[in-house]
Amino acid sequence: MVTKLTEDERRAALAALPLWTHEPGRDAITRKLKFRDFQTAFGFMARIALAAEKADHHPEWSNVYNRVEILLTTHDANGLSKRDVALAEIVDQAAAEAGAQ
Amino acid sequence: MVTKLTEDERRAALAALPLWTHEPGRDAITRKLKFRDFQTAFGFMARIALAAEKADHHPEWSNVYNRVEILLTTHDANGLSKRDVALAEIVDQAAAEAGAQ
Repeated sequence: MVTKLTEDERRAALAALPLWTHEPGRDAITRKLKFRDFQTAFGFMARIALAAEKADHHPEWSNVYNRVEILLTTHDANGLSKRDVALAEIVDQAAAEAGAQ
Repeated sequence: MVTKLTEDERRAALAALPLWTHEPGRDAITRKLKFRDFQTAFGFMARIALAAEKADHHPEWSNVYNRVEILLTTHDANGLSKRDVALAEIVDQAAAEAGAQ
């Protein structure tokens, strides 16, 4: 069973993920990304989909042409868990490599 | 330049797409899909992404695990065009083949 982050863990995690916004209502983190074009945006999504499936932890996300919005939270933990932090780090790396703004 | 459907064309198109809901405000059509699991949902999205890129006409869509919501409209036409009807038909075929509800 995955457990929710403690207050201290959440503070440290958010400090280490400056590109993400915390939504206290759902205890989720969100990031908005802009890519060069649709191909680049969907290529990024495919990479994240593979990582998410491997980790059995999936994002809530939307896409409009070159824009992608991602929300991470852990339903089983009713809030942020280490799984979200791990997936956010993968998102940040893939986004940087894809030249996202 | 892509033109908006006429009233008659819109009526005929909506009648031929019974699984879609018309949103008059944006003159868009939407469909909510549920798949077996994330792999199947994202496999469907990959197929639609390729078709969309080929047609240079892209959906607005979101995904949460095995669920996908799609909105189609043509920004250049400020409403529904033949491009949306064509993409909706591709969505319906791919969704049926992927066993979507």
